[in-house]
Amino acid sequence: MRYEIRLSGSGGQGLVLAGIILAEAAGIHDARFVAQTQSYGTEARGGKSRSDVVISDEEIDFPHAESLDCLVAMNQDAFDGYYRELKKGGVLVVDSTLVEQTVAPHALEFPFTELAREKVGREITSTIMALGALSVITGKVSMAGLTRAVKGRAPGGTGKINLKALKMGAKIASELLKDR
Amino acid sequence: MRYEIRLSGSGGQGLVLAGIILAEAAGIHDARFVAQTQSYGTEARGGKSRSDVVISDEEIDFPHAESLDCLVAMNQDAFDGYYRELKKGGVLVVDSTLVEQTVAPHALEFPFTELAREKVGREITSTIMALGALSVITGKVSMAGLTRAVKGRAPGGTGKINLKALKMGAKIASELLKDR
Repeated sequence: MRYEIRLSGSGGQGLVLAGIILAEAAGIHDARFVAQTQSYGTEARGGKSRSDVVISDEEIDFPHAESLDCLVAMNQDAFDGYYRELKKGGVLVVDSTLVEQTVAPHALEFPFTELAREKVGREITSTIMALGALSVITGKVSMAGLTRAVKGRAPGGTGKINLKALKMGAKIASELLKDR
Repeated sequence: MRYEIRLSGSGGQGLVLAGIILAEAAGIHDARFVAQTQSYGTEARGGKSRSDVVISDEEIDFPHAESLDCLVAMNQDAFDGYYRELKKGGVLVVDSTLVEQTVAPHALEFPFTELAREKVGREITSTIMALGALSVITGKVSMAGLTRAVKGRAPGGTGKINLKALKMGAKIASELLKDR
């Protein structure tokens, strides 16, 4: 089992931290092999940024995500730029607050940013909310692992709201899947 | 120019955060292309952990560090485990507080952990101190970039002590190089 996840969006959406939380949850708490990569450069200076996490049952020789099993697109530029790297049958999760055109009938759409702003009170928690949804949808990382990783990494006093966002992500994903 | 740096040590030494600070300094502030990778799994559960940063003037197709230009070893297990991956003529920086046997005459030794504990007041700042030394020794990342990245990433109220550690690292490296 090798599973490639890309978290993508704009630079200010906390993707690096979210990637590390996902990697620590799967690698340290769930005891899988994990490689986590991010790139800085022209991409980060443009409208899109990404953080890749590869999860495996075996040691990972090649940490580069090449054929995505799951793409999380938190804005339109990220969707447009990375959609083609999602493999056939891959899981596509989009933030419907910021991604308006998906041209993908199988996209799982959640208003992460709107919910983070209005229900959690901090827009920056949207990407952590996406991790909660990811846990339920893909089954590749546990909510227990994510909870522990958020507690360990959320800066200063932001642990509580990030945990609220994480749980909300799992809840809205469960509801969406139930209706299908 | 492609330059591969590995920061290595034990899990509790803040290597993931240090890798991100180095990558953001070089990628965002110094405007180079940067890929940053860390692995979780058996290594992280053992005595050694690592965070790799590849800096380049061109886009990076392969983010995996294979032939290290610079190895920073913050403990003995990391030194023993990764020394062979340093290329011939590569720069070796070791924390002499925790690495007792280097078998490498060209090692640049600094008591990062001791200085972090006794002069800065927080042992966890040792790895940030190593980044300051790295800037002076390799010239591949600027102190201005590192300073901005530390300010942006150091959690809560730890910015000030981390900046102190960063500057101390640059200072001790300058002194060592001057004597050579």
